[in-house]
Amino acid sequence: MIGIGAGDPEHITMQAVTALRQVDVFFVLDKGEVKQDLVDLRQEILRRYAPDGGYRVVYGRDPDRDRTTEAYVEAVDDWRRRRADVCQQMITAELADGQTGAFLVWGDPTLYDSTLAILDDIASRGFELDIEVIPGISSVSALVARHRVPLNQVGKPVQITTGRRLSVHWPSDVDDVVVMLDARTAFTGHVGEDADIYWGAYIGTPDEILISGKLSEVAGEIVAKRTEARQRKGWIMDTYLLRRSAPPAPDGAH
Amino acid sequence: MIGIGAGDPEHITMQAVTALRQVDVFFVLDKGEVKQDLVDLRQEILRRYAPDGGYRVVYGRDPDRDRTTEAYVEAVDDWRRRRADVCQQMITAELADGQTGAFLVWGDPTLYDSTLAILDDIASRGFELDIEVIPGISSVSALVARHRVPLNQVGKPVQITTGRRLSVHWPSDVDDVVVMLDARTAFTGHVGEDADIYWGAYIGTPDEILISGKLSEVAGEIVAKRTEARQRKGWIMDTYLLRRSAPPAPDGAH
Repeated sequence: MIGIGAGDPEHITMQAVTALRQVDVFFVLDKGEVKQDLVDLRQEILRRYAPDGGYRVVYGRDPDRDRTTEAYVEAVDDWRRRRADVCQQMITAELADGQTGAFLVWGDPTLYDSTLAILDDIASRGFELDIEVIPGISSVSALVARHRVPLNQVGKPVQITTGRRLSVHWPSDVDDVVVMLDARTAFTGHVGEDADIYWGAYIGTPDEILISGKLSEVAGEIVAKRTEARQRKGWIMDTYLLRRSAPPAPDGAH
Repeated sequence: MIGIGAGDPEHITMQAVTALRQVDVFFVLDKGEVKQDLVDLRQEILRRYAPDGGYRVVYGRDPDRDRTTEAYVEAVDDWRRRRADVCQQMITAELADGQTGAFLVWGDPTLYDSTLAILDDIASRGFELDIEVIPGISSVSALVARHRVPLNQVGKPVQITTGRRLSVHWPSDVDDVVVMLDARTAFTGHVGEDADIYWGAYIGTPDEILISGKLSEVAGEIVAKRTEARQRKGWIMDTYLLRRSAPPAPDGAH
């Protein structure tokens, strides 16, 4: 599993470059959606950093997730098992004993990505896999770097969570919250908070959009820009940091 | 500010390599401590990735932090101001108009690192700086990659916090906690939790130590290994993920 960073081909690490030059087969789960930019970026990475070729790219049909059910975890579990079926078939059919396969994963393979769970699922079936994980620049790191703000405040915690959760409530006991996988612009439910937002979409790519400011003042602009961009491009990947401007807690650093 | 990753010279990104080849002066705040490994690694990175030279390395004396006070945030604020004084003097003395200076920062410059706050402090004094932040592989990403575990569980949040905070209590409403800056092995206060720990020290270096397992079963081993390694090497950098094996909440994904 090779992390390839958050969108800029230069996010790739030397470790990832070394690894991808040793790969026999790259596996791609194809959703059949029109995310041509992402396909292009992956091809650009292989063209730049593995120019000598010597590899094959194999595509598998990514099964659909049941998005109608309220049972989120169960739906994801079922989806993961069906994806594991597809991946196991690809690996069995395409990889000889001793050969090396790879998945190029956006951002960091350990953060809100299901590939590792899929490979663990396959390994748990008794299928012998030697798995290596190569870390990548996450969209979280890229977001705050582009905004030139620290991810955490001095001595304070930061929580990474989902739009689904933020839509229920602001996490307890934490002023700094990074939100991923938010298709519902959950930040709009918190405009009453005295907080700043640092929002970014398509980070690291030529389409990058960055907006920051008081949440109550820029929330509307973000929703409008987000809607417009998603319609224009057909997809969106965005992430944001919410930073509550709370007075220091009475117990100081604790 | 250039993130250089968590210890492995190959953690460096192409973006960082491109940047460091354009640098006129590298600034180093030297604590006067014996962390020769870290000095060596920084030199190794410059030797490998900026082999043509053309840069200078300038060292400043890192002021000491007041570690006797209970007022943690105030002590860190004061320390940051004194470090900003030193950095401003270095920049003024060593950098001509239009030249580029850089700080090579371990891990990711936005995560529990003070350099960005120092530069913002200098900029707030009316000193004109054009700051760029280049993200790096954090010790958090490197830790979980080496353990080959996801940072988050499906649809669930993860909190990054400090040893100081974990020593007070386990964060509310979150089963997955990454702990940094823990000089007090705060995990030992939570051995009653039904949790796994994924611990690592000197991650990505030849001295790397990885221990994982049930917290109650491996806490003692980690403390012993940590003490031994710190005595042998004179310093330690470690990080860990605590993953509570809680049953699913009654409300499912929320």
